[in-house]
Amino acid sequence: MSALGSTQSAAQAHTPSGLKIPVLAVVGVGLIGGSFAAALRKAGAVGRVLGAGRRVQTLAQAQELGIIDEAVSLREAAERADLILVSAPVGAFPSIFAELGASLSDTALITDGGSTKQNVVEAARIGLGARIGQFVPAHPMAGSHESGPQAADANLYAGRRVMLTPLAENRPEDIVRVELAWRVCGARVIRLDPAGHDAVMAAISHLPHWIAALYMQHILQSADPAARLEMAGPGFRDFTRIAAGSPEMWRDIFLANRQAMLDELSSLRTVFDRAEQALQDGDATWLCDMLETSAEARRGWKGPAV
Amino acid sequence: MSALGSTQSAAQAHTPSGLKIPVLAVVGVGLIGGSFAAALRKAGAVGRVLGAGRRVQTLAQAQELGIIDEAVSLREAAERADLILVSAPVGAFPSIFAELGASLSDTALITDGGSTKQNVVEAARIGLGARIGQFVPAHPMAGSHESGPQAADANLYAGRRVMLTPLAENRPEDIVRVELAWRVCGARVIRLDPAGHDAVMAAISHLPHWIAALYMQHILQSADPAARLEMAGPGFRDFTRIAAGSPEMWRDIFLANRQAMLDELSSLRTVFDRAEQALQDGDATWLCDMLETSAEARRGWKGPAV
Repeated sequence: MSALGSTQSAAQAHTPSGLKIPVLAVVGVGLIGGSFAAALRKAGAVGRVLGAGRRVQTLAQAQELGIIDEAVSLREAAERADLILVSAPVGAFPSIFAELGASLSDTALITDGGSTKQNVVEAARIGLGARIGQFVPAHPMAGSHESGPQAADANLYAGRRVMLTPLAENRPEDIVRVELAWRVCGARVIRLDPAGHDAVMAAISHLPHWIAALYMQHILQSADPAARLEMAGPGFRDFTRIAAGSPEMWRDIFLANRQAMLDELSSLRTVFDRAEQALQDGDATWLCDMLETSAEARRGWKGPAV
Repeated sequence: MSALGSTQSAAQAHTPSGLKIPVLAVVGVGLIGGSFAAALRKAGAVGRVLGAGRRVQTLAQAQELGIIDEAVSLREAAERADLILVSAPVGAFPSIFAELGASLSDTALITDGGSTKQNVVEAARIGLGARIGQFVPAHPMAGSHESGPQAADANLYAGRRVMLTPLAENRPEDIVRVELAWRVCGARVIRLDPAGHDAVMAAISHLPHWIAALYMQHILQSADPAARLEMAGPGFRDFTRIAAGSPEMWRDIFLANRQAMLDELSSLRTVFDRAEQALQDGDATWLCDMLETSAEARRGWKGPAV
């Protein structure tokens, strides 16, 4: 893909990185895709922005907001784009990769915004076939409870971490080019392997969401949910914030990362059981030690990986 | 207690409520006690503020900060104060009530800032004996992860909810007077019974803290805690914020509210087990329905009870 990482002086005038993407396509024009397009446009790194997606109305909205220049089919995106970001719900990836794979130009690169990586890579292998080397998987850690094109923000990725999980089939220069695109968005890119990525994500992202959602269920199934919710304070607010996230997106994530999630739940259960026993026994020392190490770890935490 | 709710015009000039407390004592001069004293002083509702507590250094600090005028023993507080706020860790309440009960003047009223109420009332009945009617229990919902005299804030209670759980032995006018003191601090006071209070608190405050602390344990016991914490993002940040709270305070709360907590944990387990089964089965419909109702409830929540 000659256009990415170009050294033309015209491109350099716009972006110190030298990145110029004549045609960018985003599949899914919401928070992740819309922000990617907006950030690259703001940096002067893109020519034309194509948008593809299931809903005509959402694409029209993205166009009105100036996030995309043109709504296209997946086939057109595959044929015309130099770089394609797939930022749809993970469950839709198999069919998207299949459609892209059927028409993908030789020079196009694909990256994605999926929150899980092993299953995304698997879907890409099936859909893209021999073109798998053109796909450099990524996971931008820049979620929000907001969604849709109106949530798109050119600064969303500023200082945020993007995990890149390159494949053995990727050409080194293609990895560098995709990495550069994310960096031009303002992101800090780190590389790791897909399985390691998924285990870490299950622990520090997916499990908290699972627990927050189930805790809300627990409250809803209590004797008087309204009275309880009425009394809830700032601790409840923060603890449950992530439970407001997109049900479809999280369903896909949990199913996609099922084995890692089940492993997490199994060891979490051991911790819960031990603590419940201590509470039952009135074991003040155990409880205080536990609370102490947890509080210490949380206080010592350096803040979100941004 | 004639001083509370006084109608003297001098007092009225300071506080529209007419509240004048010649001598206020706070037992525990940290966030809760310090803020109570500061709020009443700001409203012009107190004459002299006495401070009692275990640590000489903390009392000295509170005096330097102008939160209290004088550090005293519990006995002096009991003899001299018109209103006493007990805002120490709940585990210290039995000995505090015993000491206060031995010297309490006929006209003094006591209220408290304890996060549980049944055990506090029990401790008060033992410690205060025949003077139990002088104690009007309260729970101000104004926690913070900050603590100590330097965290005291005259505006902490502004718009916050304070749950008052009066006793059968309280004189109606004494309940009204204690309620007025909290209202002068800016709080919105609601009344309920101690057992109902504890069940609600277990569900919406204590259980989230329990889970957040155990989740941190789970991460600390994983293969590579540092790598996981390094990757954690804004979702993790909010979900675990409350785990940084005071270990001693929370140990006391969990033990004090043990039965309500065990009841909560038992029904939470049912919810967790059902969901894990759905994940194991790859039951996308069940998962999506669950996530949908949780997200809907969280989105529809009106915000913290302030």
